[in-house]
Amino acid sequence: MTHLLNPGERIDQLMSEDIQIIQSSDVFSFSLDAVLLAQFAHIPKKGTIVDFCAGNGAVSLFMRPKTKAEIIGVEIQEKLFSMANRSILLNHFEDNTRMIHHDINQIREVIPNDSVDFITCNPPYFKEAPDSKKNPNPHLAIARHEIHLKLDDVFKEASVLLKMNGKIAMVHRPDRLMDILDSMKRHRIAPKKIQFIYPKHNKEANTILIEGIKDGKLDGLRVLPPLYVYGENNEYLPEIRAMLYGNK
Amino acid sequence: MTHLLNPGERIDQLMSEDIQIIQSSDVFSFSLDAVLLAQFAHIPKKGTIVDFCAGNGAVSLFMRPKTKAEIIGVEIQEKLFSMANRSILLNHFEDNTRMIHHDINQIREVIPNDSVDFITCNPPYFKEAPDSKKNPNPHLAIARHEIHLKLDDVFKEASVLLKMNGKIAMVHRPDRLMDILDSMKRHRIAPKKIQFIYPKHNKEANTILIEGIKDGKLDGLRVLPPLYVYGENNEYLPEIRAMLYGNK
Repeated sequence: MTHLLNPGERIDQLMSEDIQIIQSSDVFSFSLDAVLLAQFAHIPKKGTIVDFCAGNGAVSLFMRPKTKAEIIGVEIQEKLFSMANRSILLNHFEDNTRMIHHDINQIREVIPNDSVDFITCNPPYFKEAPDSKKNPNPHLAIARHEIHLKLDDVFKEASVLLKMNGKIAMVHRPDRLMDILDSMKRHRIAPKKIQFIYPKHNKEANTILIEGIKDGKLDGLRVLPPLYVYGENNEYLPEIRAMLYGNK
Repeated sequence: MTHLLNPGERIDQLMSEDIQIIQSSDVFSFSLDAVLLAQFAHIPKKGTIVDFCAGNGAVSLFMRPKTKAEIIGVEIQEKLFSMANRSILLNHFEDNTRMIHHDINQIREVIPNDSVDFITCNPPYFKEAPDSKKNPNPHLAIARHEIHLKLDDVFKEASVLLKMNGKIAMVHRPDRLMDILDSMKRHRIAPKKIQFIYPKHNKEANTILIEGIKDGKLDGLRVLPPLYVYGENNEYLPEIRAMLYGNK
C-alpha cells in the first residue's frame, strides 16, 4: 500500500478500531483530541455526518466503524485533503466516506441547508492576533490558529447545515469555554453535554468536549464524569488505552 | 448556651473549624454546599466580604476563621436572620461578623456601591414558575426557589456592590451553568475559575462552584480538578471529611 504515500508521509494505526491513517509530521498528525472527540460523539446510525476541519481525516475515519451514515469530511488544506482521501481508500471506506476540499466559511455552497444530522469539529484552538506567535510551518499554523476559520464561524455554518435538532460535537480548550457557549447561543445551538478532560489527578482540565443541539432548550446541560489521561507514572490510564489500543 | 435557642432549634457543629451553628429542620439547615463554597472561595484577608442569601449564616461563619475582613451576611427571612445573629454570638464572632435583614434586590440602599472586595452566594437553585412544585413549608420554598431573588439579580446587585476586580463565588447546579455565565457576562463579571462536584466516580456532576471577577478579562477560565463526595460504600471521601471534620 506504500504507493499511496507521498514523501514524508507514513501510515499509523488506531489499533482499537484497526484503522490505518496516513500521517505526516511536516503537515499534521492526529492527536488524542481526535480520538476523544470520536468516542464522545453520540454518532447517529444513519443520515449525514459532516466532519468540519477534518485534517487528515482522523475523526471521520474513527467514526466510520460505528455508523452506516454518510460521512463527509471538509478540509481547506490541499495536502491534508489528499492524505485523508488516500486513507479512505486504504481502509476501503469509500462506500460511505468522502472528503471535500473546501473552506467551511463557504460550505453552504456545497452542502444543502438543514440537511445534516451531526457535525463534528476539532477546530484550530488559538485566537489569531497580529502579534500572536504562530508555528513557522504554515500547515501547522493553519491547523492550530484561527487564520482561515474563527470559532464563531464554525457554529454559524453548523447552524445553517444542521437539521432542526441536529447536533454538533466539538473538542476544544477550557479557556475558550465562554467563547464557545456564547457562539453556540448566538447561532441557536443549545449545549447539552460537556465533559472535562484532565491530564492527571489533581491537575486542572486541559481539554473539553461539548455537544449542542440546534434549536434545543437552553437548560438541562449535563456535565459528564471527568476523564483522566495519564496515571502517576505518565502511563495512559485504562480508559484512554482502550480508546487507542482497544480492550485487547 | 441553650437560652440562645428558640423552640425547634438545635446547635450543630462544623467540627473542622470548631464552629457551632444554630439550625432548624423546620426552617433551614446548612448543607454540604455551604461548606464547599466556603472552602472554594479565595477569601481575602482583609476588606469587606458580603454573604448574599446567608440563610442561618453557615457560609459567613465558616469563612470567619480564615480572614480578618469584615463579614456581612444578608438574609431576607426573619427567622434565619435571627438564627444567624445568635450563632455569631454563640461563637463570639461579633467583632467582625454581622447580619443584615434585607432583600438583596434593595441591598444597595444599605451597602455602598463599589465598596465590597468579595461576595459569596448560595442562592435558591430552582427557577420559579407558576406551575413549579414547591416545598409547602414557605421558609424552605423561599430558600430553594427563586421566589424573592432571581439568579440574574444576584449578579446585577453583586456588580453594583463590588469594587473593580472584586470577586464573587457561587455554588449552584450544573443545569444552570448557561444562565450563570450569561448573567455574569451581562453584569461585567468575568468567570475565572470553576470546579465541578461529582457525587461519586462515574456519575455526572451535581454541583458547581464558580468564581468571577468584576471587570476582568473574558478569557482564561480555569477548570479546577474535580471533587468527588462519596466513595463506593457511600462514605465521605477524605477531602470532604477533612472539610467537615478536619484532619483529626
